Order: sequence, then structure tokens, then C-alpha cells
Amino acid sequence: MTMTQRLADMAESARSDAFADGDLHVMRLSILDWAACAIAGQHEPVTKAVRHVELENSGVPVATVIGARTKLPMRGAAMVNGTAAHALDFDDTHFAHIGHPSAVIVSAALAMAEAQGDMNGDHFLRGAFIGAEASVHVGVWLGRGHYEAGFHQTATAGTIGAAVAGAAIMNLSRAQAISAIGLAATRAAGLKVQFGTMGKPYHAGMSAATAVEAVHAAMKGLEGAREVLEGPFGFGATHHGQADEAAFSQSGMRFPSVSHKYHACCHGTHASIEACLELAGKCDVKTVEAVEVKVHPRWLDVCAIPQPQTRLEAKFSLSATCALALLGRSLTTDMSFERDVILARDVVELRDKVHVVGDAGLTDTQAQVRIIAAGQSFEATHDLAAQAPLAVREKRVRAKAAALLGQTKADALWSAITASGGFDLSAFTYELRQEA
Amino acid sequence: MTMTQRLADMAESARSDAFADGDLHVMRLSILDWAACAIAGQHEPVTKAVRHVELENSGVPVATVIGARTKLPMRGAAMVNGTAAHALDFDDTHFAHIGHPSAVIVSAALAMAEAQGDMNGDHFLRGAFIGAEASVHVGVWLGRGHYEAGFHQTATAGTIGAAVAGAAIMNLSRAQAISAIGLAATRAAGLKVQFGTMGKPYHAGMSAATAVEAVHAAMKGLEGAREVLEGPFGFGATHHGQADEAAFSQSGMRFPSVSHKYHACCHGTHASIEACLELAGKCDVKTVEAVEVKVHPRWLDVCAIPQPQTRLEAKFSLSATCALALLGRSLTTDMSFERDVILARDVVELRDKVHVVGDAGLTDTQAQVRIIAAGQSFEATHDLAAQAPLAVREKRVRAKAAALLGQTKADALWSAITASGGFDLSAFTYELRQEA
Repeated sequence: MTMTQRLADMAESARSDAFADGDLHVMRLSILDWAACAIAGQHEPVTKAVRHVELENSGVPVATVIGARTKLPMRGAAMVNGTAAHALDFDDTHFAHIGHPSAVIVSAALAMAEAQGDMNGDHFLRGAFIGAEASVHVGVWLGRGHYEAGFHQTATAGTIGAAVAGAAIMNLSRAQAISAIGLAATRAAGLKVQFGTMGKPYHAGMSAATAVEAVHAAMKGLEGAREVLEGPFGFGATHHGQADEAAFSQSGMRFPSVSHKYHACCHGTHASIEACLELAGKCDVKTVEAVEVKVHPRWLDVCAIPQPQTRLEAKFSLSATCALALLGRSLTTDMSFERDVILARDVVELRDKVHVVGDAGLTDTQAQVRIIAAGQSFEATHDLAAQAPLAVREKRVRAKAAALLGQTKADALWSAITASGGFDLSAFTYELRQEA
Repeated sequence: MTMTQRLADMAESARSDAFADGDLHVMRLSILDWAACAIAGQHEPVTKAVRHVELENSGVPVATVIGARTKLPMRGAAMVNGTAAHALDFDDTHFAHIGHPSAVIVSAALAMAEAQGDMNGDHFLRGAFIGAEASVHVGVWLGRGHYEAGFHQTATAGTIGAAVAGAAIMNLSRAQAISAIGLAATRAAGLKVQFGTMGKPYHAGMSAATAVEAVHAAMKGLEGAREVLEGPFGFGATHHGQADEAAFSQSGMRFPSVSHKYHACCHGTHASIEACLELAGKCDVKTVEAVEVKVHPRWLDVCAIPQPQTRLEAKFSLSATCALALLGRSLTTDMSFERDVILARDVVELRDKVHVVGDAGLTDTQAQVRIIAAGQSFEATHDLAAQAPLAVREKRVRAKAAALLGQTKADALWSAITASGGFDLSAFTYELRQEA
């Protein structure tokens, strides 16, 4: 069976009810997380630019646009919402996929579900889930070589996964699904050289829009090649993919191990922040004499700014973020890193006691923190790859959403997502539009 | 100076009047050729599917859509028109670029020019010309390795060239132009595995639309990376480009050597058809005893079907197309290859006297035809790379347009393109819309 056929099978599987509710519940968390990030990212310059373009084009209003009262055609909505969701770089991350699945997948899936009119919300939820699952599968199949060659997996694998979500949500025939997946693959693009610019979040928007267009064209009769991913001239080979079919075929769902970001700073600081949060309860922070933070050496070039002076520098500073965590300060919003916060006397004093060390014995999701306080030694390790229980994850994603949007809005979104009759798509999109 | 800066320079150069009129005249011919191909391709299934998608999305009506009375936003118009222009695979070809420049460039340039409102037609013409020139430059810079790895240069180099056209036409600042070129490059895509399907013409449409979107986003303030083409992680390196800067920098204009297709069949048959047309005037076709056609061996797998039975087979048959040419039959439209034409007794008799031979001493644009008639030998060679004088090219492109659209329509389009006050954009688009 070809890769494309396997992906078409995945799209078809969403018509059944066979997914475990625990797996779907992770998707619910990611949808809340997506909404929180997208609403919080709606005023970013990149989101404004893309929304300006799409509102200027306008079109038949079928899909909700974050930050606008007007709806747009599904491709325009997917473009704006995908960009908004990734604008703060605060959306979910899947380490094996090497990408941010929900920014692309949820944006495309939601627009297509709304365009369907009286869509059953659980059908949307299942479609988004299998699309996210497909994007992780494609990311794993492409492997690290694709990323290291220069491709932005969020965008490339994301486009293909979003087409799978669309095939599920729009109930494409198998032939249509195969065309849609192939059209998405022939268009899938995005280079890491755009990192550090507005081009990075734009990639998430363009990938969601491209997938929507591919699905829409296949629905209207556009028949493309049946095997675009595989073979010596397929997407995998041409884009430096490792074409690891064994990794692709590994059984079990992959998306549920997605990581939600609880702190509005570089992902490389998160494991040590978690370790510090654990230690903060075990010792008196006022008595701390020294803090040693061990991380994988790759982070030393990325997020080890010792004495940050600006908000952006603080987000890439292991010492400052650890000090903030030990002192119990919030790390959830951009405001957590304002100059008056990061340069407060107690923060600076503690920050300067932090010593950051590279340790190749750790993975890049692990950190080890040792504190000497009142002559005693305290130690904690944390691995982002080891997921907390679902109830803990739910509590933390909801707290993050509340920090970004306020408790009322976060609760209203969560109520729509977990409505007793199933995902309430109309209440959910109503809440998104109220933020405009 | 980086590649991106050179392309931005090209966009800026279009504001001057410095282009030679002979070079611009080739662009005029290509615009007529584009219109003829797009109008003739408007009812193809692929064009219908894409137009259906875009009309369903609708939007602010600023740009003409081939085959529709309604206008669309510039990106939707570029998508439909690019697809239509390449639907018959009858549009212009540039051998050094390894692609079809005008399908992508003219579609994007026209939509953007119309969106400008009171656009000066000659500004559009210069913008389209420099965009086509840029696409050829990028195609040459990427080189054959990019194509052989599996990429469709029409789409990839075309997207970047169309962004250059847009930067010129929309009068982008230098910073905006650099963002637009980078966004186009990060999105440029298209795999040859789509050849033989509707995916191929779709590539021309998607590339035109992508370029329009990139230019539009840059205009609205989206700032991307400044160097997306160059460097070890840029588009060239990641996409198996040869990054031949010397080839890029070679002086002189490249687009003017573009080839227009005068026959509605595989490009590999064109050189031998031309040689046969020359010989038809020199001998009595009724007395032909044998015909020997020598072409580069690569064509033997492509277009040497000896006894074609269908229209599609005839288009890939050196023997049938040579027989039709010697007998003075039209080769200009799809109808030229209907079964009753290609299986007529005189055609079959002559076709069976044709012997096709591979000769590695020829280039793939050359053919050598030798005829034995009434005991005498006649010989002619033709090289598509050797351009006929401009007046001859004009006569032939206009004859092709008349064969596809009728004399009246072809003349009206040409009058608009060559109006005494300069390119008459409003008369030109009026003629395009009348075909809906």
C-alpha cells in the first residue's frame, strides 16, 4: 500500500467512532489552546497584514476569521487563522513530527467544517484529530533530514495533514481524497530561512489555505496524480525526506503526545522551568545560594542569554526564566517578560545565581536543576517528552487559556468544546467572533 | 549582490523606458499567444474545476476571469487564468528556462495590473516582460539539475518571476519587493509527477496565484526574510538547484528567445514539422517514396508512435505529424488530429513511408528530414532554437490565434495589444471577457 493510500485510509477512518475518547480529548485541549493562541495573536503585525489582504479580497462569507466580524471563504479564513495561531509561537509542538500541528490543522479543519453548513461538531473534532495524526505521521516519515536540509515541517507535513483533515470533514470519495492529498503535496512548501521573521507564522496560514484549496479543487473535479508523496520523484525524495515507512506505519496514535506550551518563552527553557516550579515548593527561595541548570548543549546557543535586558532576550534566557519560575512569577503572557518584571531587583539577584551547563547526556527535552539553599542541596529533573496525566494537562491548558483570554472567555470556549451533546461548533465560532 | 537583490533590481528597471521595443514586441506576441491559449483552454475540465472553486469563493471583483462574466479578486483571477493558459499545453516554451513562462507571468501580471485601477497599459507590458525575464533567469540559475530532480520549473521559477512582475506593476518599495520575492520563494512548488494529469496546468494557476498573494501580503506590511533564494538553506540549495550565478548574470535579455508553439502537438515533433513544411514546397508530395526523420534520441521514447490510432497518439507521432505537414494539413487545433483526419488514406500511406531515426549528434531542438521523391533526394534541417525574424514570428502567432479564436477576435486582441497610444488594457480585457 502506498503512503498516499494509507493517508486516504486515515481520512476514511474518521467516519467511524473508533477513536479513543482520551485521544480525542487531547484534540479538544489543542483546540482550546489553538483558540487561545490565535485570539491572543490576532493583533500581531503579521496577522494584521494577512487579514488585511484577505478582507480586501473578501468573498462569500462562510468561515469565521479571528479578529474580524466578517466571515470569509474557507481558504481566506484558514489563511488568517493559521497565521494568527502561530503568530506568538505559543501553540502546541510535537517533537517527533518536528512541528506545530494544530496551528495548521485546526485552522483548515474549522474553515472547512463551517463551510459545510450544518456540520456535526464531533465530525469536525474527529476530522481535526485524524488530520493532526496524519501530519505527525508525515512529519515522522520525512524525518529529521527534511528539517535539517532546510524545510519547515510545520508547513510541509502540515499541508498534507490538513488535506487529510479536509478529506475527512468534506466526506471526499477515495479518488477525490487521493487527488487532494497529491495536490497538497505538490504545493507543500516552507523554508526555515524564514524563521525569525513574519514568514514563519505566515507559513502556518499558507499551509492551511493551500490544503483547503487542494480539497476544494478535488471536490470540483480536479484529478491530479495518484502518487505524489512516494517514489524517486515524489515529495519525500525531492524534499530530502528519509521516507521511513516503518516509522510511518508504527502502530498507535501519535498526536496525543503533543506538548502544549505553558510558558510564553523559548521551548528550550520549558523543561528547566518545570523543574524550578517543582523545586520552588521544596525550599525557601530567599535562602538560595546557587542554581545549576543542565540542558542539552544545543540550547546553549539558543536560549542561554545570561543577563537579558529586553522582553525578547528574557524569553531566550534560561537564567531569567528559572529565576521567574522560582519566584513564582507568571510566565504565561508577553507581559510576564516586560522590562520592569525581568529587571526587578529580586529577579536580577536570583538570575545572577543561575549557572547554565551543557550536558550531552540529556536529550533536548530534558533538564536537570540543582539548588543549594541554606546549605542544603535540592534537585529536580524534568522531561517534556514524559506527558503528565490528561487531567493535569487539561488543568494547565485551561489555566493558560484563562491567562491569555480571561477566565470567562476561556470557560465559554471550553464549554463549547466539551458540550454534553458533542462539540458545539456554532457556540465555539460564536466565541471566536466575539473577540473581533 | 545577492540573487534576491538582483531580482529586485530587475523589478525596479521596469519603471524606466529602457527596454528595446523588439524585446517588448516578443512580450506582445506572447500576450496574444497567452490569450489565444487561455480562451481556447477555457472549457477544459481542469479550467472548469478551478474556475468553479474560485467563483464559489467569489470576492471583490477587480480582475478578469477567462470564461466568466464576473470578475474576481486578483489572486482568484490569476489562479483561473494561469490554469486556462496552460490547459492545452499549447503556450510558449523557453528551452533554457525549461518551462512555460507566459502562462504564469502574464496571468499574475494582468490580474495585478487590473487591480491597480487606472493602470497604464505599457506599465503592465513592461512589468510582464521583466517578470518573464526574471523567471527565465531563475530557471537558468536553478538549471537542469532542479528539473531532473523532479521539479516543474514552470511552477517554481515561474512563481518567483511572477512576484518580480508584481513588484514592478504594483510599484513596491525595495523592502517590499524583497519580502515579496522571499515569500514567493518560500512557497514556490510543483512536482513533475503531476505531468500527464490536470495537476500540470493547475501548477501554472497556483504559481500565478501564489505570486499575487506574496506581493499583496508584502504590500500590506508582511516582512519576510531578505535572502530566501540564496545560501545553504535557501530555495536553490534545498531544491537541487545548480545555483549557477554566472548563468544568471550573463548579459542581455533572455526571454525574447522564447518559442511559440505553432502546432497543437508534442514539442518534440515541431522541428521535424518545420523541416517538412519547408520540403513540401520543394517536391511533389505525391511522388514521395521515403521520408527519413532524424531527431535527438530522447524523443524516440516521447513522440515516435509509428501508427497512431487516436488524437492523443497522433500528437505524439513524428510519422503522422510529418505526413500531415507534407500534405499541407492544418496542425493548429485539436481538431487537426481527429481520427478521420489522421486515418485518411493519403495520410496513412505517407505516414507509413516515414522512418524515424535517433541521432545523438543533434540537439533536442533540431531535426533533419530527408525525402526521396521521384528518384531525387531533398533535405532540410530545422532548429527551434534559431529564431525566425520578428516579423515572421508575428505573422505566425497571429495566424495561430486566428486559427484558435477566429480572425475577428484575434485581430481585436492584437489591436488592443498594439494600440497606437500604447497597450490598451481595457480593450484587451474587454475582449477576454466577451469569450465567457
